[in-house]
Amino acid sequence: AAGFDARSAPPVLKMSFMEPSVALNAKQLLREDDSLLRQIFFNVLKHHHPQLAAKVDVIYALSQAWCKSREDGDFDILERYLGELKPEELILVASSFSHMLNLHNLTEEVANTQTERAGRMGQLVLPTRSTNASFIKLTTQNGVKPEEIYKALCDQTVQLVLTAHPTQAFRQSLLKKYAQVRRLLDELHNKRMSNYEKLETLEAIRAAVQAAWRTDEIRRQKPTPQDEMRHGLSYFQQTIIDSLPVYMRRVDTALANIGQPRLPLDHSLFEFGSWMGGDRDGNPNVTAATTRDVCILARLEAVNYYFVVVEHLMFDLSIWRCSPELKAFAKRLAAKSQGVDPMRVQEERKKRNYADFWTPVAPNEPFRVVLSALRDRLWETREVLHQCMVNPNLSVRAALAEADCFVDKKELFEPLKLMYDSLVATGDESTANAKLLDVLRQVQCFGLALMRLDIRQESTRHTEVMDSITTHLELGSYAEWPEERRLEFLLGELRGRRPLFPPGLEMTPDVKEVVSTLRMLSELPGHSLGAYVISMARTASDVLAVVLLQRECGVRAPLRVVPLFETLEDLHNAPATMTTLFSSEWYLAHIDGVQECMIGYSDSGKDAGRMAAAWALFETQQRIVEIAKQFGVRMVLFHGRGGSVGRGGGPTQMAIRSQPPGTINGALRVTIQGETIEQQFGEREVCFRTLDLYTSAVLEAGLDPPSAPKKEWRELMDRLSRVSCEVYRSFVFRRPEFVEYFNHATPAQELGRLNIGSRPASRKVTKGVEGLRAIPWVFAWTQTRLHLPVWLGIGDALSEAIEAGHLAELQEMYDNWPFFQSLLDLVEMVMAKADPRVTSMYDAKLVRPELQALGDELRAKYQQTKAEVLRIERHTDLLEGAAAAAAAATPAGAAAAVVPESDLDEKIRLRDPYVTPLNVMQVLALQSLRSFNAGDLPGSARDYRPSNSEVVDLLSRDPHADDKHPFQAAMEDCLMISIKGISAGMQNTG
Amino acid sequence: AAGFDARSAPPVLKMSFMEPSVALNAKQLLREDDSLLRQIFFNVLKHHHPQLAAKVDVIYALSQAWCKSREDGDFDILERYLGELKPEELILVASSFSHMLNLHNLTEEVANTQTERAGRMGQLVLPTRSTNASFIKLTTQNGVKPEEIYKALCDQTVQLVLTAHPTQAFRQSLLKKYAQVRRLLDELHNKRMSNYEKLETLEAIRAAVQAAWRTDEIRRQKPTPQDEMRHGLSYFQQTIIDSLPVYMRRVDTALANIGQPRLPLDHSLFEFGSWMGGDRDGNPNVTAATTRDVCILARLEAVNYYFVVVEHLMFDLSIWRCSPELKAFAKRLAAKSQGVDPMRVQEERKKRNYADFWTPVAPNEPFRVVLSALRDRLWETREVLHQCMVNPNLSVRAALAEADCFVDKKELFEPLKLMYDSLVATGDESTANAKLLDVLRQVQCFGLALMRLDIRQESTRHTEVMDSITTHLELGSYAEWPEERRLEFLLGELRGRRPLFPPGLEMTPDVKEVVSTLRMLSELPGHSLGAYVISMARTASDVLAVVLLQRECGVRAPLRVVPLFETLEDLHNAPATMTTLFSSEWYLAHIDGVQECMIGYSDSGKDAGRMAAAWALFETQQRIVEIAKQFGVRMVLFHGRGGSVGRGGGPTQMAIRSQPPGTINGALRVTIQGETIEQQFGEREVCFRTLDLYTSAVLEAGLDPPSAPKKEWRELMDRLSRVSCEVYRSFVFRRPEFVEYFNHATPAQELGRLNIGSRPASRKVTKGVEGLRAIPWVFAWTQTRLHLPVWLGIGDALSEAIEAGHLAELQEMYDNWPFFQSLLDLVEMVMAKADPRVTSMYDAKLVRPELQALGDELRAKYQQTKAEVLRIERHTDLLEGAAAAAAAATPAGAAAAVVPESDLDEKIRLRDPYVTPLNVMQVLALQSLRSFNAGDLPGSARDYRPSNSEVVDLLSRDPHADDKHPFQAAMEDCLMISIKGISAGMQNTG
Repeated sequence: AAGFDARSAPPVLKMSFMEPSVALNAKQLLREDDSLLRQIFFNVLKHHHPQLAAKVDVIYALSQAWCKSREDGDFDILERYLGELKPEELILVASSFSHMLNLHNLTEEVANTQTERAGRMGQLVLPTRSTNASFIKLTTQNGVKPEEIYKALCDQTVQLVLTAHPTQAFRQSLLKKYAQVRRLLDELHNKRMSNYEKLETLEAIRAAVQAAWRTDEIRRQKPTPQDEMRHGLSYFQQTIIDSLPVYMRRVDTALANIGQPRLPLDHSLFEFGSWMGGDRDGNPNVTAATTRDVCILARLEAVNYYFVVVEHLMFDLSIWRCSPELKAFAKRLAAKSQGVDPMRVQEERKKRNYADFWTPVAPNEPFRVVLSALRDRLWETREVLHQCMVNPNLSVRAALAEADCFVDKKELFEPLKLMYDSLVATGDESTANAKLLDVLRQVQCFGLALMRLDIRQESTRHTEVMDSITTHLELGSYAEWPEERRLEFLLGELRGRRPLFPPGLEMTPDVKEVVSTLRMLSELPGHSLGAYVISMARTASDVLAVVLLQRECGVRAPLRVVPLFETLEDLHNAPATMTTLFSSEWYLAHIDGVQECMIGYSDSGKDAGRMAAAWALFETQQRIVEIAKQFGVRMVLFHGRGGSVGRGGGPTQMAIRSQPPGTINGALRVTIQGETIEQQFGEREVCFRTLDLYTSAVLEAGLDPPSAPKKEWRELMDRLSRVSCEVYRSFVFRRPEFVEYFNHATPAQELGRLNIGSRPASRKVTKGVEGLRAIPWVFAWTQTRLHLPVWLGIGDALSEAIEAGHLAELQEMYDNWPFFQSLLDLVEMVMAKADPRVTSMYDAKLVRPELQALGDELRAKYQQTKAEVLRIERHTDLLEGAAAAAAAATPAGAAAAVVPESDLDEKIRLRDPYVTPLNVMQVLALQSLRSFNAGDLPGSARDYRPSNSEVVDLLSRDPHADDKHPFQAAMEDCLMISIKGISAGMQNTG
Repeated sequence: AAGFDARSAPPVLKMSFMEPSVALNAKQLLREDDSLLRQIFFNVLKHHHPQLAAKVDVIYALSQAWCKSREDGDFDILERYLGELKPEELILVASSFSHMLNLHNLTEEVANTQTERAGRMGQLVLPTRSTNASFIKLTTQNGVKPEEIYKALCDQTVQLVLTAHPTQAFRQSLLKKYAQVRRLLDELHNKRMSNYEKLETLEAIRAAVQAAWRTDEIRRQKPTPQDEMRHGLSYFQQTIIDSLPVYMRRVDTALANIGQPRLPLDHSLFEFGSWMGGDRDGNPNVTAATTRDVCILARLEAVNYYFVVVEHLMFDLSIWRCSPELKAFAKRLAAKSQGVDPMRVQEERKKRNYADFWTPVAPNEPFRVVLSALRDRLWETREVLHQCMVNPNLSVRAALAEADCFVDKKELFEPLKLMYDSLVATGDESTANAKLLDVLRQVQCFGLALMRLDIRQESTRHTEVMDSITTHLELGSYAEWPEERRLEFLLGELRGRRPLFPPGLEMTPDVKEVVSTLRMLSELPGHSLGAYVISMARTASDVLAVVLLQRECGVRAPLRVVPLFETLEDLHNAPATMTTLFSSEWYLAHIDGVQECMIGYSDSGKDAGRMAAAWALFETQQRIVEIAKQFGVRMVLFHGRGGSVGRGGGPTQMAIRSQPPGTINGALRVTIQGETIEQQFGEREVCFRTLDLYTSAVLEAGLDPPSAPKKEWRELMDRLSRVSCEVYRSFVFRRPEFVEYFNHATPAQELGRLNIGSRPASRKVTKGVEGLRAIPWVFAWTQTRLHLPVWLGIGDALSEAIEAGHLAELQEMYDNWPFFQSLLDLVEMVMAKADPRVTSMYDAKLVRPELQALGDELRAKYQQTKAEVLRIERHTDLLEGAAAAAAAATPAGAAAAVVPESDLDEKIRLRDPYVTPLNVMQVLALQSLRSFNAGDLPGSARDYRPSNSEVVDLLSRDPHADDKHPFQAAMEDCLMISIKGISAGMQNTG
């Protein structure tokens, strides 16, 4: 069929209403939505607590006054007013601001989607980020030929690995209600409504806000890993699975625009992985059984989805013409079920309660014969998975293999592909490219396992296992062997065929857990598993031990072993570790030319400060990629990105551009932190954007790699990071009074006790900062709005470099080196949200006077860092400069208004009035709790009894309420609410 | 809580774009969409059959030329052109026009929803029909006080009974594709889209049109009753269940507008019934097993729906405050599951694969404790229903009663109501009135059975059963007893307690079927069943026999027995029949004050012509209602409405208004013909409108009943109906050559042979018209565009009355008597679609010359009827007058443009160009098939072999292809397609 094509001739339909010239601008929209939701919340509050509502109104006004004037006077009024609240009022006021803040965040998200959409409709020219935008940029500016773009996309795969949320802030039921408000708000903007529909929508918003207000926002019992997993799964089911083909179709359209064909069917731009239910690091209740459940659930999810899809296809593909191959295939299938008589088939289907087509399909409808067979097989697969679910000691792999089930994706992909080719062959390609195309892409991307589960375990646990083996075999104690002794032993075993694992070995519970997980892996179908990540990996033997243990536990299709270098020290000798590994040709043969390493800077940031950590990472990546190249090994880097900092997922783009050139060649594996899953995949629209973001960022990184940094930039960078690290450690580790200051000036201690998150706060419990895990460390400074871990030491490093006369060079680095640019922008952004005034309040109320000098010192450091950063960026104020930078980059002269990219300062300013009161209330709560624990409580507090029954009920929600003093219970609730509120306000974790 | 209320203060949000003054008018919209879809279809056609596409283009142009000019010359050119097509082209051309016609119909539906929506948004002032419109009308014009409206609504219930579709025209898979096109077209109008989104939507439309074109539109094997039932069920699942609460919420809003409270929760404005799987009349493969399956499926559908709903509520009602009653109830439930240990509960839930909340619910979340218990019980109910499905000799009633299941709706309603009251009690009524309110209304309306199944069986079958019983007992032969002997016997038995049914009675298969159905009824839960309808009911004993047989077969909760009086004669002595029944006080006690009768005029129309039938019905209703009143019995009338005539569901309103006053007092039970289910419930929007239509029509009929007709109007009506009946019968039954004319001038004979519809065309096979069932009779005349059954005889009656000097009176009747008005409007509408030119073509080609005079006579009658009707209506042309009439009724002075109600002539004119060619091709097909069967076929036809392989494939679709001559096979396909196309064009059945 000649390429007659619907896309060329625009039909005669055009929209029938004209536009005035002033722009719908996000700022106004944001403000209107913001005040609408506040108004609604306000009415809800007044309805339930009239007096309290009036107080909240006053507090909000006072908070606004101070945010506008920044006068100490205004701050003190706010402080005094909050200080007079009774404990039960504190709880409700804190809860009100927490709710208002969350509602505000929704308006931000809605504002984004709205500008987003407006951009797509060509009303605004957005700066450069969506895929087709990067097409345009790549083709026009950098002279990349369209064929190159196509070829690059055909080899490009981004693996997004979802991880559990360490501080799962809000209970699911609250999240669902906010999601409802967001959806309804969206509808208010998009759908044309009658007055009645508008009324009912507003009513529905109010009902959701009201229900949220009446829900206890503190999670009373800890979530189980399965809860997390279910939660993670629901994102696939509700958004990701459907958004992917829609996005791929969009890429096709964009490609068609530059005269390129569709993406090939057997290649997917994305693959999904997960740590939920696989990550054991410091997570004792993730057991072998959990991992098994998780894999089964994910498969069940996939099968259920395809089942419904196949049933729809049975209606869609009601075509009777087909290719000879399909006819032959259908005949073979029909022959198989020849013997059985149709009544039994019908009975059987009735029993299965199939939606339609109970009667056996007439053989002259080949598509349906095939689809009907696929449906039966999906049903079988589901039944087997159910049995595996119910009966924990069935081997999933064996059970699936025995029955007539789908195990890996090509068993489902090929029949579908055959139907696709048949449609194309009979000239029905537009039917082929409708629903069927989407399904083929889903199968290609999600397969039957939906996602691949990584296993993460700490290196020391494997050392324990090896030690108990060698001890039992009287070969001595593995744990005490020096490294080269271990290597010699491990390689010896790996080269031999001799079994090592002694049956009848006594195992401590820890050892048993590691072993039973490894054995479980041998019973799970391969496609359900991804990588085995070793956290705290520091030597080559850590890697080899896992390779050996997998073999000894009978893992036929072993997982690739990925070391995670976390501390600075481990990062420094990562290259040496990899050299050791690659220099054994047994290992080289074993990894078959590809080695994956994971680098995360959550721990190293705590260890050396942000700048040193970022630089160490930059260099390490480069070095290990080079070393790998020498050994002819392709190095894949797995990025454990802390949750994105700030809004708009801003620096994904930047973060990717700032990787050393050549480390991202069309393959990116990155973790999606649990907390950002809601924002990046909560909504189809948002999910679409996330996929778009990663595709274009990786595409550009491949086709338009940032230039490598010049030699003297590196030397300067070395110096900066050495100085910043030096200053950072001098404060954090060497100043004797720092720890005490930290524990008083922040709620770090309280974080540990209150059950925030599904994993314990510290690895082994040493006092001081070493013992702290990276997340609570960063989290504590976020609460007080100083964000110290992000900038401490950078100020000194910059001023020392400037005094040495490197200002011009630093500015040049900022302008031309994405790595350096993203580093400073990050610092700038964080500072924009810092508020030293609030921090000093923490000192004034919680730190003993002798230590307050340290606080002042730190704030002085902050001001210094701020000044230096601004000087290098040539801004007069935080965040205000991006406009000019962007202006230079766009073509002149269109009448369309230009929207500054992510008017972040605006958003931050809008939140301040909500966050500050929460800080004040947090300080009040911390004061009283600490004096309560210290036992010197003023009279009024000791005999505090909540006055009305409602508060009594409120406090009774706490399972341990009746063995706490009511004052203490009240203050803890207040503290918890403020923590969640502030973190919603700062909207990031470390 | 004081009545602080979100609804009074309009929030500060107003929409932000202004309106120019010219209207979006439906006419333009219709034309644009129409040409868009035609354009798309055209491209599809060209892509697959380039040459053919050119021919279709010419044919369409020729057809348009004739429709514009109405010149015989143009008609002949069209005829000649089509006559030269080769058989395989005929098939494809017919199929093209059939597709184009269906696509056109979609544009009509879309145009309606668009004007509808525009109306709701106040851009247009719609005439009077939606509920809140009738509120306004009732309150302002007729001075009905708002409280009366509220009270009326509280007692008003409309029962909609879905019936199977006798000529289910299109295969489901085609219907689904058209539904897709309709949805996408709708989106094009409503959603704001970027260019890419627009492109992808158009592409999706094209894919659907293309898939439809490639689907074989002739159904090759007969649908089973289960297929029908599944099809019927899918409407509940996809639209009705969700639309009902939305509509009820809208009624609440409208009531709030006139200062009235919400509708009470324990009353539903609607109840749903069904005949699918219950109607045995002339339907041999609806057996007892079918009825059982159908009830189980409906229950499964309901339970599945509530299961998902309850799971959502578990997230929504995450509130911990509750009323003491709820707390006590939750405690009782928790106590029941006290003993079991939580691990088993968790295991059990895992096994059931519940979406969330595996762990047992914490007892201090009372809503979830209750909801969790409801979920478990719904699960149990589902399991039991599955077993009943699988194991045909389980008694459903007993199985449900034994296990811990939901059987009737209050078991589900009360716990939900308790939660509702609890929310109101704790001041959370806006949460109560959110999702929970909707669920309560769904449970109130659909219960657990979803709908009530009626059983319909012919009276003679029960006579057979009684006869075989009395013969076996040597009491003589019941069939030969005179009526009063039967009555005496039946009443004797009913008063006694003596069993009558002899075990060990030999039963013929027919008798056995009736008996096993009755026995099945005793094994089904009561709520799944509605009425037992006796078709062809003619005497009181017909009713009593069923009452007795139910008792003898152990039906504990007997179904109410509803006689259906079909023939004119039965209608005439319906009053006598009812008097006989009511005069036995055993029966009076048995029916407990309510008697339901069904009146359908499908048969009587065939018997006496439309006018006589309509009048007979009008009078019968009045009389039996009076007779019932004398005996203190409330008469409920069950209307078997033939599918609605014409578009826009126009005369529902009229149909209801034209019922005799007082016959609709807040209760209407009406059938929804299978074919109109798609239009009235296919889409949420349309479903919403349907519910709205019935509510307001019944509301008005109750509060603003039409005035009773004057005595001399009735006498005049008597005369008109006697004359029309006389003329009608003189043609149809007494003219000896009429039957032969009918069989040649229409495809009546061919209809019987080709398997249109799931039931045989005639009851017992007598030649001639008596033997024909009403539906094929009307259907045949629709194909030839004469619609004779609707108007024959009316012309003579009117002119005879006018000559007698009653013109002024007739005009007065038309203006003031809704019954007479709707009768003439109906005739007018049908005539607007008649096309005598086409009909005469049938005569010219298919009728032997001697009979053509009869044809001319009939067409002359048509012209006469047209003239008289126009004169009475004071129109110069068909359909043009409604504008003036409506104008008088609306308030003066708004700037809004006025849209004439249902611009039907426009729609009809737009379809003509598609329908006429189909008529021409039908005549060609009929000619060739008849001469083929007569054996005198011209040479070229006999040795016709389709030239290319594709047509060979096409013809091979027919399961009996290889024992038919290819020419015959081709012509039959062509005939079938033309029949479906034309009926889509006429879009009604009799």
